[in-house]
Amino acid sequence: MLEHPSIKELLVKLGKKQAVGSVLSLLGWDEQVNLPKNSVVNRARQMATLSEIHNNLESDPVIESLLKDLEKDWEELSREEQTVVRHTRKDYDRATKLPSEYVAEKAMLDSQAYHAWLHARKNDDFASFAPFLEKQITLCKRGAAYLGQAENPYDYQIDLFDPGMTVEAIEGLFNQFKAELLPLAEFILNSSIKAQTDKFRGFPIEQQKAFLTEVTGILGFDYSRGRIDVAAHPFCSGNAADTRMTTRFNENVPLDSLFSSIHETGHGLYEQGLPADHLHNALGQAVGMAIHESQSRLWENQVSRSREFWQHFEPKYRETFSEQLAGLSSDGLYLAVNAVTLCPIRVDSDEVTYNLHIILRFELEKMLFAGELEVTDLPAAWNRLSQEIIGLTPPSDTEGVLQDVHWSGGMFGYFPSYCLGNMVAAQLWYRALEDMPDLPSDFAEGKFDRLLAWLRENIHQYGKQFDTQNLVEKVTGETINPDYLMRYLKDRYVPLYT
Amino acid sequence: MLEHPSIKELLVKLGKKQAVGSVLSLLGWDEQVNLPKNSVVNRARQMATLSEIHNNLESDPVIESLLKDLEKDWEELSREEQTVVRHTRKDYDRATKLPSEYVAEKAMLDSQAYHAWLHARKNDDFASFAPFLEKQITLCKRGAAYLGQAENPYDYQIDLFDPGMTVEAIEGLFNQFKAELLPLAEFILNSSIKAQTDKFRGFPIEQQKAFLTEVTGILGFDYSRGRIDVAAHPFCSGNAADTRMTTRFNENVPLDSLFSSIHETGHGLYEQGLPADHLHNALGQAVGMAIHESQSRLWENQVSRSREFWQHFEPKYRETFSEQLAGLSSDGLYLAVNAVTLCPIRVDSDEVTYNLHIILRFELEKMLFAGELEVTDLPAAWNRLSQEIIGLTPPSDTEGVLQDVHWSGGMFGYFPSYCLGNMVAAQLWYRALEDMPDLPSDFAEGKFDRLLAWLRENIHQYGKQFDTQNLVEKVTGETINPDYLMRYLKDRYVPLYT
Repeated sequence: MLEHPSIKELLVKLGKKQAVGSVLSLLGWDEQVNLPKNSVVNRARQMATLSEIHNNLESDPVIESLLKDLEKDWEELSREEQTVVRHTRKDYDRATKLPSEYVAEKAMLDSQAYHAWLHARKNDDFASFAPFLEKQITLCKRGAAYLGQAENPYDYQIDLFDPGMTVEAIEGLFNQFKAELLPLAEFILNSSIKAQTDKFRGFPIEQQKAFLTEVTGILGFDYSRGRIDVAAHPFCSGNAADTRMTTRFNENVPLDSLFSSIHETGHGLYEQGLPADHLHNALGQAVGMAIHESQSRLWENQVSRSREFWQHFEPKYRETFSEQLAGLSSDGLYLAVNAVTLCPIRVDSDEVTYNLHIILRFELEKMLFAGELEVTDLPAAWNRLSQEIIGLTPPSDTEGVLQDVHWSGGMFGYFPSYCLGNMVAAQLWYRALEDMPDLPSDFAEGKFDRLLAWLRENIHQYGKQFDTQNLVEKVTGETINPDYLMRYLKDRYVPLYT
Repeated sequence: MLEHPSIKELLVKLGKKQAVGSVLSLLGWDEQVNLPKNSVVNRARQMATLSEIHNNLESDPVIESLLKDLEKDWEELSREEQTVVRHTRKDYDRATKLPSEYVAEKAMLDSQAYHAWLHARKNDDFASFAPFLEKQITLCKRGAAYLGQAENPYDYQIDLFDPGMTVEAIEGLFNQFKAELLPLAEFILNSSIKAQTDKFRGFPIEQQKAFLTEVTGILGFDYSRGRIDVAAHPFCSGNAADTRMTTRFNENVPLDSLFSSIHETGHGLYEQGLPADHLHNALGQAVGMAIHESQSRLWENQVSRSREFWQHFEPKYRETFSEQLAGLSSDGLYLAVNAVTLCPIRVDSDEVTYNLHIILRFELEKMLFAGELEVTDLPAAWNRLSQEIIGLTPPSDTEGVLQDVHWSGGMFGYFPSYCLGNMVAAQLWYRALEDMPDLPSDFAEGKFDRLLAWLRENIHQYGKQFDTQNLVEKVTGETINPDYLMRYLKDRYVPLYT
């Protein structure tokens, strides 16, 4: 399938680029997990050198001439060859059409803006961060222009994270979804039924770790080619050959560690399911952030917050934490796992209100890129829209507009992926249930292999062969449709809170 | 001091090479400490790609032209500049005079021979390993020839590890030393006084770890720019900016973990004491293996097996392991720390008999390179010489000629460093005592900063400015002299075993 002589040569080039890229990823993991505090400057130097090498490999003119050979023979290429060529072209253009002064300026800004953000968040001082944020927007627009997208810089940003998605498409989905989500959230939050979470205190970390390692292994994470470690923030890095997840522990917030780990396991299962022989090319790489997030969310929410999941794991959980959970009924445990509470912080939010946090950010990004909102007016706009959409005004900018790191790195267009991922997760879930109506009964027996096999076959095996919308359509018969997420949230939460 | 325009350009080149080299070192550390078992092939691919990049940086023709510029102005160069140029020339010649086919052949053999050695050791089957060993010797000789040292291939190998050392010099030192060591070892081994080690059982690993972390921190290891983790074999890697040590734990061999950690701490203190601004050039790099080993041995033996050290740490040790050590007197504890027993395995040997293991290996390497011994006759020669020098015949080749990994990688000339390191450690120790006669009383108070400052000033600060013998002579007034090691061993062991 990959037989054109130029593609073979191209794959050798991509193999080296991927090896260096994967080492950079490992250096990032090590920085979060292991790095001694005074070794930070040394690590930055290592990463700068490797990034430069990576950029040189990525923009090697030999790639351009191989791509031209292949594009000339386009009609004769196999479908797989076309996938590799199409994505290599996209990456190559991004790597070469940005002038090196621009890349250097952006790298410098990313670093400065990150530290400015840390400082601003700590001191609740948005004004000191504003100039960096303005500069990031300017640079993003310039970046889009270099790639011929001067007219649609926010579309350009969105496509960086979710190939093929557009502002217009997301706007339609979010508006439709918001109209139904707001009343549902109101209903749940106004319910007199409240989850009781005061039992979740004093869970020894070693036991939490043992429990979640067992659970994630049973879900299907292959620990013979992956790990889970402790870091300040949960994440999943690496690839199918060596998948490195992290979580964090707090004796008094055990459900956070558990569900974060399961979330990262969803990412890890996707990575481990990608074709391992093609890690270095588009056939073995993830589609984008929304599909990635659909995998993490599906395992975290549809699977692991289900009754059936807890039917299986509750005895083991109670055995492990018998003293702490004494006096909490099974229904109480299940309700705690599905607690819904209003909270100004996105990452601490439940799966219902989380989506509101994303819609808020999307609205603001849209206005910023359309020139309808000045950066200096952003905090006021955040607070006003937060009240309108989420139903609360954050007590400070630190807990409001400054809470997330993304914008400091110019990662506009990333946030929508989180909500799109939730939508795709629900849509895949109902499609899987059509194929396997008795799937939840597997979970009650601690079996997850049928679901994993279904995801391997329908999502993982394709790598980047289909863009976000095309893949969703191929699997479910329609592009992303928020009705499934709404249906899922109602199915799960209305009975619980009625 | 580094002001010649060409040297500034050279330092930029060396900086990139060092950054990639340090990442390779981190990948090696991660492989030993973290790597999931089925991620090994991926790691090999990452390392192969980075090694190729490292080789390209090392043999960049621009380095040659910069070196020529600098060598032309040799007399005008500062002493520091000369050091950088001299060592860069040595590295550059080694990197470029070996044809790439040779380098590829050697890399392939290293990998194959390693696996052949693992297999042979497991199955006590030297014959299956012999062809690989022969090939390694052939390739080492060819390598020496490419560098113009066809006449003295073993000298060439020795110089790789200890700049300036020669077979002849080592032969003289070892013969002189052996003549006195044999009767001392015999005296100790025949003594009716025997260390009682049966109390050292059931030491919980968490407590061992806490104790040794505290001890190594007090010795001076800076954990804000270094770590200690668990690996199958203790080692120290990294550099002053990020020093990564490992140890291993066994509940029933706690002294092994403790002294291995202190040994690696000695290496780590040397790395952390090298001029941090010069990590990428000879001014900030270790002289060689013998000097490195002198640092690890001095902290392990002269310092941490001393009465005074235990005067300070015994109470804490007993508090941590009170049950286990009940009934063991202070003298008994001190004797256990200085136990001497005959053992076929080098790495399990005490500091007295360890030297005999090294002399054995040196004798054999010398004969192999002189063509006086065939590889097929090596096991018989090992066993015969082992009986003669160490006083025992190993029960199998697995515990004899196959016990060490070094030869499988063609690392002939490395072993002598261990014994030379012991000699240098003792020589430095008595020199330090001349400057600070009351030094041991520091240890009794848990203070080690005077000794560390002395080593920083006399050894660490110089990087590679002096070769092994020159540095020893500069500090102690004479080149390596085995009398100091003999004096030290007698001072410590004769009273204990009389």
